[in-house]
Amino acid sequence: MVNNDKEFVKEVTPRAVDFSQWYLDVVLKAELMDYAPVKGCMAIRPYGYAIWENIQRLLDGRIKATGHKNAYFPLFIPQSLLQKEAEHVEGFAPEVALVTRGGGEELAEKLVVRPTSEAIICSMYAKWVQSWRDLPLLINQWCNVVRWEKNTRPFLRTSEFLWQEGHTVHATEEEAEAETLQMLGVYKDFVEKELAIPVVAGRKTEKEKFAGALRTYTIEALMSDGRALQAGTSHNLGQHFARVFDIQFQDKDDELKYAWQTSWGVSTRLIGALIMVHGDDRGLRMPPQVAPVQVVIVPIITKKMKDEVLAKAKELAERFGGALRLELDDRDGYSPGWKFNEWEMKGVPLRLELGPRDLEHGGVTAVRRDTGEKTFVTEAELEWRLPMLLQEIQQGLFQQALQFREANTHQAGSFAQFRDLIAEKRGFVLAHWCGEAVCEEKIKEETKATIRCLPLEELNGGEGPCICCREGRGKKVYFARAY
Amino acid sequence: MVNNDKEFVKEVTPRAVDFSQWYLDVVLKAELMDYAPVKGCMAIRPYGYAIWENIQRLLDGRIKATGHKNAYFPLFIPQSLLQKEAEHVEGFAPEVALVTRGGGEELAEKLVVRPTSEAIICSMYAKWVQSWRDLPLLINQWCNVVRWEKNTRPFLRTSEFLWQEGHTVHATEEEAEAETLQMLGVYKDFVEKELAIPVVAGRKTEKEKFAGALRTYTIEALMSDGRALQAGTSHNLGQHFARVFDIQFQDKDDELKYAWQTSWGVSTRLIGALIMVHGDDRGLRMPPQVAPVQVVIVPIITKKMKDEVLAKAKELAERFGGALRLELDDRDGYSPGWKFNEWEMKGVPLRLELGPRDLEHGGVTAVRRDTGEKTFVTEAELEWRLPMLLQEIQQGLFQQALQFREANTHQAGSFAQFRDLIAEKRGFVLAHWCGEAVCEEKIKEETKATIRCLPLEELNGGEGPCICCREGRGKKVYFARAY
Repeated sequence: MVNNDKEFVKEVTPRAVDFSQWYLDVVLKAELMDYAPVKGCMAIRPYGYAIWENIQRLLDGRIKATGHKNAYFPLFIPQSLLQKEAEHVEGFAPEVALVTRGGGEELAEKLVVRPTSEAIICSMYAKWVQSWRDLPLLINQWCNVVRWEKNTRPFLRTSEFLWQEGHTVHATEEEAEAETLQMLGVYKDFVEKELAIPVVAGRKTEKEKFAGALRTYTIEALMSDGRALQAGTSHNLGQHFARVFDIQFQDKDDELKYAWQTSWGVSTRLIGALIMVHGDDRGLRMPPQVAPVQVVIVPIITKKMKDEVLAKAKELAERFGGALRLELDDRDGYSPGWKFNEWEMKGVPLRLELGPRDLEHGGVTAVRRDTGEKTFVTEAELEWRLPMLLQEIQQGLFQQALQFREANTHQAGSFAQFRDLIAEKRGFVLAHWCGEAVCEEKIKEETKATIRCLPLEELNGGEGPCICCREGRGKKVYFARAY
Repeated sequence: MVNNDKEFVKEVTPRAVDFSQWYLDVVLKAELMDYAPVKGCMAIRPYGYAIWENIQRLLDGRIKATGHKNAYFPLFIPQSLLQKEAEHVEGFAPEVALVTRGGGEELAEKLVVRPTSEAIICSMYAKWVQSWRDLPLLINQWCNVVRWEKNTRPFLRTSEFLWQEGHTVHATEEEAEAETLQMLGVYKDFVEKELAIPVVAGRKTEKEKFAGALRTYTIEALMSDGRALQAGTSHNLGQHFARVFDIQFQDKDDELKYAWQTSWGVSTRLIGALIMVHGDDRGLRMPPQVAPVQVVIVPIITKKMKDEVLAKAKELAERFGGALRLELDDRDGYSPGWKFNEWEMKGVPLRLELGPRDLEHGGVTAVRRDTGEKTFVTEAELEWRLPMLLQEIQQGLFQQALQFREANTHQAGSFAQFRDLIAEKRGFVLAHWCGEAVCEEKIKEETKATIRCLPLEELNGGEGPCICCREGRGKKVYFARAY
């Protein structure tokens, strides 16, 4: 045997001991990524990238189904372009990477490696948008972006990351607002259905909104350590960029008008959310919809029935490998126990064990990653049982995450209670907020909790006195410590 | 009417007048790209990007079917890493873009924006490859790369471009060579079947090989102006990178050995090839396999049957829109003639015209973009005629390109003849070459023709005296002036 059966799990720090270390152990051990010799950057390994490919495929389908088309804009943005929108440059200037030399020469104008593409895209849209006939302009881009980060963390915060950014142009404010909310809805549906992660949809405060936006909407998820993670954002950019980049169109009434814009994005951060919402002390638990491997067949080889077992395992792999993402682990030199641990670490939703006894009984032992539950499934039943089990796992993971979120969403009636909840229980804390930035800031200073969002959904409790100042009144908002 | 019927074609320079201008006119007019406010970079517009998405989907399937998995490596390469392999740095150093500032500070080590990823990937492989069990390591990456170019040309030569780069590691030289040739074969099959472009497969000379490779193989296509275009390359890297990046593995015999590597890539350049091989004076002609729109329905609206014609057009669009990439052009304010011109410019393989007369006869008029041929197709026949027509167009474009290449492949027996052929007829010229770099260089200086490849296929003519020195002897090789 190459390795000890327990090696995989032993090397992973339990979540209760150190959640942060558990996260780092798992991303490495499951071969999602590896540290690269560039500060703050990572290599996404095939197993991690396969999750991203599934995310891309499923989200891209939804983006196209809502009428958007993909395009590609340059990586480099001349510094003067980024500086056009005042809030935008203020937000991003501190974290940009600058190209100052090219082709052996000092550049006349420094180039920013895109931290986001509003500036470069708006400069093109100013050419493409002339008439109301050109609207709405609905474009999306899948690409890499760079934001120079001091404290990095695989998938959650890296200097370079992968994402999609949608950029649309509309004739009216109403259309832009409808688009912003539509894409927030697309994100919510996608994250809940495919990633099995329940999210709260809401609006960001002025302080937390995107640099240059009129309004930012967000979906917020709760990680299993009780911290929140912003999983996707959708911005109504108003006419801020249209005015500085001069995106004007001749309307039906023949008047020249500034256009209304939106932008919206999700990133490889979603992989971090998948890990932290569903993972356990044995490793990842991948929702079947985005799992790189949905089913693994592990033949249990003994001397006496080796050939028969292997032959049946291969037969099953061929039979179901077309419809499912399936792997047959027939590697020599690794014990079944070692293989079980490895595939559990990688979070494969369903393991099919096939040994001499299973063969004699004409079936396989199916083991669920989410519950550990074992069931014997006859060969004849596999056809319908496999997809059904995967569906049950997908729903089971969502329900478990939803129950966790509900158990970890608290109501705070006083600031003392609020502070205790944030310090001791974490999770989401719902409390009334007057709407003043000074209260928001004070709460953050004293508790490290930020307003995650002003929920779109009407909550019980109506208006009440602000948890911080007690003077102003406002609706309940979601607070949490966040990634 | 918004525009004059002929506007589209009028604005495009005929190929015979100025091929180079025709190319620029077409890429803009068909909305494949637009110039961006960054030197040497372009924005790929949705119609152009959709071609790239089809290329990605079809090629990615082939790359995965041959056992490769996708991953993602950092955009930035520390300068010291790029400098490790001597030939490699010599080849790429002059054309790199350098990041010297990040997060508001001068960087301790400058970062190269990847011109290709051997250096960064090899630094990771050195960690991942330990034992023969880890081999072969078969990874591919879809990404953007940057090579600082002085003279740029949309899709053909831009400072930033999109590509895929495969990077594999093997235990033996034989396996690496087999992989190199396998991927060349994958490229040839892909380019011929999906892009309908015939290519010659062969080996590059020492002078033309990839900086750092042992051997470079290439597929070469002939553009309709008689110049050649390198459409894809596959490199056997030998142990060059393994030795400098220390990629060693414990072999089955327990010995520590340096690994053998390959890399291979194709880029958005293929879109340039599609344009220049198939395009005509009316615009693009897209092979159906990669056409963003395979079929366009243009209803011919007259006063008397407007509703009926539109209803039938919508019905057909819904019926066939699932299986085919189909658009219904029911825009108001544009004449049918203007629409015909626009879709011809965009190279849509098949146009279905539906007017009152077609409706009365229970069908549509199908117009092929490749031949201009019109056929009346009854509604009942559409189901099988549409895919059949698309298949015929795909094959027709390939055959036409093949005939062009055959008609423009010449044999040269003397240097005078060679020089005349290159100057007057262009195309591929086959001539004997002794294998000496000095002759290769002299031919290039005097005729601007380069050796495109030493063909893999055995050619008639065996060995003969070198076209240049007449002293040395060698086999026939492909010469051409190239992009």
